[in-house]
Order: sequence, then structure tokens, then C-alpha cells
Amino acid sequence: MSMKSQESRGGRIRLVVAYDGADFHGFARQQGLRTVQGVLEDTLSNMLQVPILVHGSGRTDKGVHARAQVVHWDQPYGPPADRVVHVLRNRLPADIIPIQAREVDSEFHARFSVVRKTYRYALYRKPIPDVFTYRFSWHVAEPLNLAQMRLAASELVGEHDFTSFCAVAAPQENKVRRIYRVELQEDRDGNLYVFCEGSGFLQYMVRIIVGTLVDVGLGSINADAMPAILAARDRAASGRTAPPHGLCLWNVEYPTVYGGRVLDL
Amino acid sequence: MSMKSQESRGGRIRLVVAYDGADFHGFARQQGLRTVQGVLEDTLSNMLQVPILVHGSGRTDKGVHARAQVVHWDQPYGPPADRVVHVLRNRLPADIIPIQAREVDSEFHARFSVVRKTYRYALYRKPIPDVFTYRFSWHVAEPLNLAQMRLAASELVGEHDFTSFCAVAAPQENKVRRIYRVELQEDRDGNLYVFCEGSGFLQYMVRIIVGTLVDVGLGSINADAMPAILAARDRAASGRTAPPHGLCLWNVEYPTVYGGRVLDL
Repeated sequence: MSMKSQESRGGRIRLVVAYDGADFHGFARQQGLRTVQGVLEDTLSNMLQVPILVHGSGRTDKGVHARAQVVHWDQPYGPPADRVVHVLRNRLPADIIPIQAREVDSEFHARFSVVRKTYRYALYRKPIPDVFTYRFSWHVAEPLNLAQMRLAASELVGEHDFTSFCAVAAPQENKVRRIYRVELQEDRDGNLYVFCEGSGFLQYMVRIIVGTLVDVGLGSINADAMPAILAARDRAASGRTAPPHGLCLWNVEYPTVYGGRVLDL
Repeated sequence: MSMKSQESRGGRIRLVVAYDGADFHGFARQQGLRTVQGVLEDTLSNMLQVPILVHGSGRTDKGVHARAQVVHWDQPYGPPADRVVHVLRNRLPADIIPIQAREVDSEFHARFSVVRKTYRYALYRKPIPDVFTYRFSWHVAEPLNLAQMRLAASELVGEHDFTSFCAVAAPQENKVRRIYRVELQEDRDGNLYVFCEGSGFLQYMVRIIVGTLVDVGLGSINADAMPAILAARDRAASGRTAPPHGLCLWNVEYPTVYGGRVLDL
């Protein structure tokens, strides 16, 4: 159904979307594969009957979830921002959930305007996996030394060259990033959450940080080795890569003029 | 890998399993379709190198989940009960989770020995669906009158003919069942749970009970009409059928000699 004949509005729309990444081959469009960007572009293009390009705040890997991914697109006409969530909810599959939409000026860019991002990595620590969370958390039943993990985490905060904590094949030349927070939170239901907040993240960076923290928690890496691991600028110096299904893009922050964080914490 | 050469034990094994029903065509084996019983039988038969028949406490519909389904099988040899959970966890797909195993005598039958069953139906009431729960709960954003729903629920407790609350095509001739509890529990995160506990349930019975309670909550059915709806013995007298993905087989109770409820509440 075309939107041409309805109440219609052109311009740049910013949308916050959540998704369950399990059944997607990541965010970025790939020919012949189900991706979040691909489904969003196909849905919008079909709805508006013009090709729509969707820009995301960044890619997420195959299997990674989002509570608050941010995208924008330009539309020559289409539903006004206050109708976008409702209209898309009826058109998107259940595993992509439109959360919040607003009109933005053409200076805003979902990726280039990002100020900070927060990821949450979920671990489940009880002996038996839980049917309601297995899809969204890494099951680690062995005992973890959280005090040592917190000590190691604190060494990552600040501006560092994160070559040791990203994929060898990571495309970015500059590996310096600023980390504001690496915080471990436990609850009584057996969940352990690692929140990573930073200016930006390299490929696999959060997953390698979490994998290395788990190696510290298990005792196979010493917490006081973290400065040396950073200094090595060598992927081989850090620990394992945590699996993708525990990772979730939790929040994205833009300049105050665009409302700061897109979701309340 | 055959178990013949390892520490081995014959007899009847009872297993509690959880599953995420979203990607199964229900519990009961069907030719050419992925079902819970089918995957369990194939996994056990492959492991033990003899055909294994699995008996469940009852069927669950396509899309329905289980926190505690109970099955039993007879094995001529195989891992002892205290090894079954570990051995199966490495062989079953992630959406079937073995929880607890024990040896039982040949008088025990997963289905015929059942004393009580508890189902939990989950609804999510916030305006925007939640990415971590959408797979396991029915999203009902309209306001619900919980007091009226509780009043209606109380009318279902006791022994009744539940013809009005089961599928027209339900195979059972006797539609009389005893319901011990229909309880609504809310939490602060927007979840509403309906617990139904009874001697046994007819096809679609919990889903029609919940759908009818939601119709009461929305005001389209009066709570004080429940006795008349029961008395009508006519599926057309009750309300809608709630979708399967909010339903979860929560607990199964056997005689005290077999340990009562298989899981703590």
C-alpha cells in the first residue's frame, strides 16, 4: 500500500529499533541473507514504493541483539514520525521491534553523529541453562572470581590502543578508543551483566573484552596482566572471544541537540 | 557413539526437560516435522544405537513452551540417571534443555501417573513489545481490568465440564476436569502471568481460559457470565483462544512416592 495518498511527510526520520539477532546474519545488508538492514530497507521501500536506504549507528555481528539500535533514512513522503512506529509494527517481523521515531534535520547521521555507545553482555551462571534466557546469554557454569574480573575491567577504562581487543581483520586503521565504563552487575536469578560504554568499538571488541574477563574470572589470565595485554597490541595476547548471542547493543548517545541517549537507562 | 562399552545401566529413566517451543511443531512426533518428541527419540536412539520410544506427560501445541515437561523411556543399557543430563546436554539442540533425570520403576508412566499439572501463561502489557520476552509472551497493550479478570478466574476453580473451554475437535469424550487454581500475578516490568493448575487439561483449554479472561479484562465479556458460559457446554459461548507463544508447561506433579512436583515452584 502506497503512503502517497495519506497524510504524508518528507524528510529525515530517525528510528530506534530493538531486534532479536538469533535469526539474522547481522545488521548489514548482504545479498541473499536475512539481515536487519535488509529487512528494514525492503519493508520501507515496499511501503513507500521508492527505494529507501537505511543507515545504522553501526553494524552488529551475526547473532548479536539490540535493545536500541538507531537508524535513519530520507523519505520523499511517508508517515509522519509520530505514526512511524505504529505503521512499521504492523509490517515488520516479530523479531524487529520499532521503539521510537522522530524527525531529525539533515545534519543528523545515525552513524557519524554518535557520541557514545553502550553494549550489555549477558552471562548466565546457574548450572542448568534457563529456557527463557538461553537465547540472549552465554552460559558459564564454572565459578567466576568477580573481584578479579572487576579489577581487570577497571584497567580497560580510559583511552587505549585496543589492537589486542579486536579482530585481526578489523578494517579500522586507528585502534585507539575511549572506554568510559566496564561494569559488572549481578542479580539474584543467576545473571551477570557486563556493561561496556565507550566512544566507539572495534570489530569483536566487546566480545573479546568479555571473553578475556571470563578468562580472568576462571583464573587462566591474571587481572594484573591487563596493562601488558593492552601494551602488546596483539590479538594473541588477550583471551577468548565471547559468543555473539550474549551481546546486545544497549544504548546510543547523540549530542544534546538530538536528545542525548536515545533510551533512558 | 555407542554407550555399550561405558558404565551402563538399563531400566526406566524419567527426564524433566525445558524447551523453547517457537521452532517446534509441538511436542508429539510428526513425520517430516521438527517436534520435541521426535528430536528426543532421534537423539536417544542415535546415542544408544537402539530404537527408543519417549513418552511425555502430555502433548503441547505448536509454539507452546515448557519449563518442566516430563518424559520417560526404557533403555536396555545407557548412562545412569546421574549422567543423563550431562550427556544429553552435549547432544540436544540449544532449544531443548535437559533439567533433571532419575531412575523410576516400571509402574511409573510420564502421562498416566500425573496427579496435577500447572501451566503459566505470560502476557506483556507495556505499549511497546520487549525484545527479550516477545518470544514467550502475548503482547496485550490495551488496558485490562484485573479485578474483573480475577473474579472471572475464580468461577473456573472446582470441578466443571469444560466443553465451553476446549477445542471443538478435542478428542476426549469426558470434558470434566478439576481446576485447583487460576491465579493472576503481576510484576513491575509489565508482565502479567496467569497460573492454571488442574488435574488435567483439554485441547486448547488453558489458551481459551486465558483468551476469555482477556475478553473479560477488555470488557467484551462480563465476569458474572462465567457460570453461564460453563453451563452452555458450547465453545461458541466463551472467548478467544490466546496465541500459543505465551503458554508454558510450568510443572507436573506425580504421587509422593515419585517425589511430588518435579520442580520447586
